[in-house]
Amino acid sequence: MSFSIWGTEQEAKPLSSSIQSLVSKVVGNTTPRPAPAQADVRITDSQLTADHVQELQAIVGDKFVSCDRAHRIPRARGKSYFDLLDWRVDQIIDVPDAVVAPASNDEVFDVLQWASKSNVAVVPFGGGTSVVGGITPLRGTFPAVISLDLTRFDAIEDVDPISGEATLGAGMSGPQAEIALAKHGLQLGHFPQSFPYATIGGFAATRSSGQNSAGYGRFDEMVASMEVVTPKGIMTVGNAAPASAAGPDMKEIFLGSEGAFGIITKVRLKVHPIPEAKAYEAFVFPDFQSGVAAVRAVEQHKTGPTVIRLSDEIESATNLTSTDAIGEQDAAAPHGCLCLTMYEGTRAHVTSRHEETRDLLLSMGATSLGEAPVRKWEKGRFGAPVLRDALLDAGVLCETFETATNWSNVPALKKAITAAVTQALGEGDSVALVLCHVSHVYANGCSLYFTILGAQDSTPIEQWRHAKQRILEAITEHNGTITHHHAVGTDHARFMEQEIGPLGLGALRAIKAYLDPEGVLNPGKLLP
Amino acid sequence: MSFSIWGTEQEAKPLSSSIQSLVSKVVGNTTPRPAPAQADVRITDSQLTADHVQELQAIVGDKFVSCDRAHRIPRARGKSYFDLLDWRVDQIIDVPDAVVAPASNDEVFDVLQWASKSNVAVVPFGGGTSVVGGITPLRGTFPAVISLDLTRFDAIEDVDPISGEATLGAGMSGPQAEIALAKHGLQLGHFPQSFPYATIGGFAATRSSGQNSAGYGRFDEMVASMEVVTPKGIMTVGNAAPASAAGPDMKEIFLGSEGAFGIITKVRLKVHPIPEAKAYEAFVFPDFQSGVAAVRAVEQHKTGPTVIRLSDEIESATNLTSTDAIGEQDAAAPHGCLCLTMYEGTRAHVTSRHEETRDLLLSMGATSLGEAPVRKWEKGRFGAPVLRDALLDAGVLCETFETATNWSNVPALKKAITAAVTQALGEGDSVALVLCHVSHVYANGCSLYFTILGAQDSTPIEQWRHAKQRILEAITEHNGTITHHHAVGTDHARFMEQEIGPLGLGALRAIKAYLDPEGVLNPGKLLP
Repeated sequence: MSFSIWGTEQEAKPLSSSIQSLVSKVVGNTTPRPAPAQADVRITDSQLTADHVQELQAIVGDKFVSCDRAHRIPRARGKSYFDLLDWRVDQIIDVPDAVVAPASNDEVFDVLQWASKSNVAVVPFGGGTSVVGGITPLRGTFPAVISLDLTRFDAIEDVDPISGEATLGAGMSGPQAEIALAKHGLQLGHFPQSFPYATIGGFAATRSSGQNSAGYGRFDEMVASMEVVTPKGIMTVGNAAPASAAGPDMKEIFLGSEGAFGIITKVRLKVHPIPEAKAYEAFVFPDFQSGVAAVRAVEQHKTGPTVIRLSDEIESATNLTSTDAIGEQDAAAPHGCLCLTMYEGTRAHVTSRHEETRDLLLSMGATSLGEAPVRKWEKGRFGAPVLRDALLDAGVLCETFETATNWSNVPALKKAITAAVTQALGEGDSVALVLCHVSHVYANGCSLYFTILGAQDSTPIEQWRHAKQRILEAITEHNGTITHHHAVGTDHARFMEQEIGPLGLGALRAIKAYLDPEGVLNPGKLLP
Repeated sequence: MSFSIWGTEQEAKPLSSSIQSLVSKVVGNTTPRPAPAQADVRITDSQLTADHVQELQAIVGDKFVSCDRAHRIPRARGKSYFDLLDWRVDQIIDVPDAVVAPASNDEVFDVLQWASKSNVAVVPFGGGTSVVGGITPLRGTFPAVISLDLTRFDAIEDVDPISGEATLGAGMSGPQAEIALAKHGLQLGHFPQSFPYATIGGFAATRSSGQNSAGYGRFDEMVASMEVVTPKGIMTVGNAAPASAAGPDMKEIFLGSEGAFGIITKVRLKVHPIPEAKAYEAFVFPDFQSGVAAVRAVEQHKTGPTVIRLSDEIESATNLTSTDAIGEQDAAAPHGCLCLTMYEGTRAHVTSRHEETRDLLLSMGATSLGEAPVRKWEKGRFGAPVLRDALLDAGVLCETFETATNWSNVPALKKAITAAVTQALGEGDSVALVLCHVSHVYANGCSLYFTILGAQDSTPIEQWRHAKQRILEAITEHNGTITHHHAVGTDHARFMEQEIGPLGLGALRAIKAYLDPEGVLNPGKLLP
């Protein structure tokens, strides 16, 4: 990925006329705010000494320690609105003092030992797709910080097609993992929007959730065990049993730990045969309330779709599920809330699940729209972040965030968040467009995924910081979680105590103090 | 429950002639080893002072502190073979020094504060059904130990039928919980063999798994959040969201914690409407291998049974799935491995899941046996422990244990365990009957549940201690878990380091040191 946008330079494309027209309607005139060329970015000097560099080279090899601008800049920020704005605002960017890429658990362990001894903070780096400040190179109380790049953990090992398990290197990207598994006729089925770039280790460290979660579960549910390297030693968390009653589930302590306790280097995953058949059908509901009731019934009766999503009225009207056609008015499309469903498995499975889901949705007020809207969504489903790059270049405020809550609390939470955004961004002259969809469903609740479009003011970082604070206050006051699948990172860290309580935070800090006695791992993130 | 047997005196019944005949064939002549009358049991004197008792009474009320034999004896042991033998061998039994029954989180907190200050260990008590020494009143380094009885946490609160959640007191038994939920048209669907007596808090503290786990999941999957009282304060673990990426999942740290970190007082559970329809069908496979392949396919293709179980050849031939008919020869029954299936849900759901499962099983070598064997099993499914009481009275060695592993490892693990049992119990003159079934299935593996029948030697506790050691060694050497759903307790504690590694154990001890600084909670169990 390019340092200052979501994807590569090749993926970038200009705003379509329909989006331009939407933007000008909502936001009015904007002042372009392009990213600088990488050569023009001003960065902090490396704080590592020549001795430091030599010591690191002795561990991982000369080639795999770099203090070059070209390596440090792309590992300085993730892809949140804050991150992307940082490059676009004239300032000196704090970047890691070096990039270090070990290739084995022993090398990672030696690097962590070195860091603990040398007073250097360590920030792990996978695909760099964090949208919550997860890779910002915070130094904490340490004079220096290195970016620990997992890219060389790129192998697939120990494929067990009988049990449906395979061990993948933490540095493998989504596509790398799927290609390696496909050679064995297997699939993981984890497709978050970050899929093209994000890594297996990152999915585990952040409790990622993908678009097929109704069928295959969240990423944390896919993990059988993990190898984790801590400053105290190398661990395997989780064992060969599919379930155990031998105490707390150790792997749950490291899932979502965001590099605070150790570095996830290998992940043993539950995989499954590439599905034999697929089916698609879109529906429309007269309003969000009836749509939510129906997708809730689907999940509570386990009718079995692989994908089920529901957009609210504004998101449906904006045509946001198709990145190529956002803002287009489709005269033929009925008013209401768009619901997309997909089914995967054996032919018999797909047929029965599709029929059962369809019957239930139709009985609860849905009208079928056929296959087309789902296929359109499937084709463009990784495209939204690329679109955001173009909007940011144009000087538009554009960000997403997400939460989750119980079904009974969905209306209250959605209302509170929408009010918080509208109020926070409406305090100046701007008006915000707040789009929302149900992206993941559970028997007892669902996630709510918000997309915000608005006008940037003259201090866009402060503007969004203020809005984000109001949003998080609304979420915690109204029984949402501060993050359903984006993780905590830097952006949500100050709300962790409200999320898990002071004793919860204390218990996590006790684990950290044991496994990372010097506190070099990811200071200032997850456990502030 | 009576102190020295599984159930009540009323439930007890003599061995049927078919079981007597099976026993005499396998075990030969036995010497009866009846339990003593409660009045004849010799116990340790209470080590609490009058001041201690007064201080406890000031917290929970005069009525709810007892040093009476009648209260202390039934809280001294669980229901493992070791536990039941303890009463039957002439010795002084260590019993808790008092039974204390607080009624609120604040009272529990005050009791824990008092215990920490007064150097008194605390062992929580729910239904007393532990089969792994979970309630043995170990004192650790403390001069005294109290049994903290959760019986007064018996209320249902905050029922949310929209989200399918309800909060239950940790002291409610399985039937109490189902009756309370049924008033709201809801059901939990957790039916372990301990169901009649075990409690909601115990299910959570031990990661229990019930017979309907294929449909409703393990108990740990049913938990949305919990209230936990620790010596450091009162916590809620888990929040109102169905899933979260805000760090490690805090409730997973307390599920399976067996009272080592705190006392679980209330559990918010995922519940569901009482199913509208049920279907039953039994099958027989020519051998265990083909049966295992078929139940694996069912789970990996998610055809959707609520119950699926598979007995091996010996268990099938022994007719163990029907406690009334064990040992009976049924001339009409085909040879092979019995597989029981049940389906619950809406009528449409039951029909499609039954059909899909049936088609798959038949295509993989099954022959249908119709409904009858499943209905017979359902009727008698909580009866086996009562049968064991009669076998123990008759002087027969009878115990169950369980493990779990990946599908690909099932044959090797089953063989190793069977060899370990046979060898350990065959070293003297006795021969053991080793029965096994697959009781819980997952996409990547299954549990193996063993029942052992054999001849007791003259020192039955040492005899089983030796066999149990060999079994646990075989399990850990062959990639099984030391416990799939019975928990760790006293019996498995010395294998915890092998199960989760020294760093895993260290991390859990770090949590304990933070939440229970004096270490008064359940010393010598889970974290030895």
